[in-house]
Amino acid sequence: ARGGALRRRGGETLTVDWEAVTGFALEEQQQGAANLLATFDQLRPADLANVLHHLSEKRRAEVAAALHDDRLADVLEELPDDDQVEILGKLKDERAADVLEAMAPDDAADLLSELPEEEKERLLGLMQPTEADPVRRLLAYEEGTAGGLMTPEPIVLRPDASVAEALARVRNEDLPAPLAAQVYVCRPPDETPTGKYLGLIHFQRLLREPPFALVGSVVDTDLRPLPPGTTLPALTSYLAAYNIVSAPVVDEGGHLLGAVTVDDVLDHLLPDDWREARGGAPPGLEGA
Amino acid sequence: ARGGALRRRGGETLTVDWEAVTGFALEEQQQGAANLLATFDQLRPADLANVLHHLSEKRRAEVAAALHDDRLADVLEELPDDDQVEILGKLKDERAADVLEAMAPDDAADLLSELPEEEKERLLGLMQPTEADPVRRLLAYEEGTAGGLMTPEPIVLRPDASVAEALARVRNEDLPAPLAAQVYVCRPPDETPTGKYLGLIHFQRLLREPPFALVGSVVDTDLRPLPPGTTLPALTSYLAAYNIVSAPVVDEGGHLLGAVTVDDVLDHLLPDDWREARGGAPPGLEGA
Repeated sequence: ARGGALRRRGGETLTVDWEAVTGFALEEQQQGAANLLATFDQLRPADLANVLHHLSEKRRAEVAAALHDDRLADVLEELPDDDQVEILGKLKDERAADVLEAMAPDDAADLLSELPEEEKERLLGLMQPTEADPVRRLLAYEEGTAGGLMTPEPIVLRPDASVAEALARVRNEDLPAPLAAQVYVCRPPDETPTGKYLGLIHFQRLLREPPFALVGSVVDTDLRPLPPGTTLPALTSYLAAYNIVSAPVVDEGGHLLGAVTVDDVLDHLLPDDWREARGGAPPGLEGA
Repeated sequence: ARGGALRRRGGETLTVDWEAVTGFALEEQQQGAANLLATFDQLRPADLANVLHHLSEKRRAEVAAALHDDRLADVLEELPDDDQVEILGKLKDERAADVLEAMAPDDAADLLSELPEEEKERLLGLMQPTEADPVRRLLAYEEGTAGGLMTPEPIVLRPDASVAEALARVRNEDLPAPLAAQVYVCRPPDETPTGKYLGLIHFQRLLREPPFALVGSVVDTDLRPLPPGTTLPALTSYLAAYNIVSAPVVDEGGHLLGAVTVDDVLDHLLPDDWREARGGAPPGLEGA
């Protein structure tokens, strides 16, 4: 998942009273999709996903058709697999490919792995090669392993980058917190799979160093990276034991393949039907 | 858990080859506790906890006796409940109270809740009231709820604090990443339970604001705080849905009680015997 919870898209986010929204959505009064959209625009992706989940299939398709690619991508990332497959299946192939391109590669791979082989290949073929390639790489790993869960787009810096450059990457509002909390230092190339992985630097450490220091001189080398076959329980133990929110995944040659973030682990520790289990209310608000 | 994974305690951390350490520790050759300690000093708390877990009860008590209070506290936080109770039970009451004071209040509360009522009260009575009070408050909440899992020591700022002050708090190396990733803005008093909770600010947002801006002017108010009774599944959903690593817990009057961090949630999602399940190897290193 790439969507940051606290990200604001141009200006204020309105806090919408949940009961008002569900009542509104579930009754499906005479409002057209456009009217709904005006309200939905102000919801976080997870909350809009929850509303969408409770709409009729027809209305869900209308709303999906009316959302921008980026927004639909963010919302799909928060929906159960079934809904994702249903919504994607109703889009024209070209648009489906555009939306998959806008999704985080790990989420796009998850979705594509739910599709019949032929449809998966057709959509991958329609995507830009630069967008399809990382997704293909992820699809090669077993589900529920570090390789299958990782994002191939962590913050990667060369050792001669400065601390100031690192902080400029960290503060990017499009990066969710777990991914922004650590930068990974690798020899070139700095796109995954990278050159040799050297180590990581935590954001708190970056804040303690002078801006002109080179990241190569402050890199932390003593946390061992994970192989892509690491299982979910081992991964969970690793994050819990070291109290970290993101972990490097490297291949046998020591090249960085990606990073597994704690939110992807949480997602997979929850039962598949957790969105159902909490009923109509958005997560955590039951008792609020 | 308060111990930061990547925190360095004065100087370099040596990467110790795991096989060397376990072989060394398990065989229990003629080295005294002092010799072991010289090696152990360079391990992360989670790794030292793992070594300790595999020592004999007698040797475990010797090592515990020789560790400084702060270090023993960090290590206890990473041990299974049984080991924690055993080790604490072999300390003199006065020292046990000192070590409990050095533990994160949520971990101290977890440990105390495993003890017989009388022993729990005796140890709480020996602790400094300023240290015992937050622990007593945590003990009042049900296990496995937001109230029982939260730390009462998140970063709390008054609205008239500056962004520069906030960043100075964030970069503190004694704070683990999940706790440092967000600051909470409250009216005075700014110790928990605080005055009215106003909202939170993410570290990435802090990095985008001018240092002299007041936190009250950049506070994010649209993520609803959780009531202390929030259950573990609801809590997990909440963190996963919003991709955040820490969540505010408030009482009915809207005062901040503490924050639940993602590592505490992970700890409780793992089966009780996960440390056993992964055998002798430290987490995540099985396949490395």
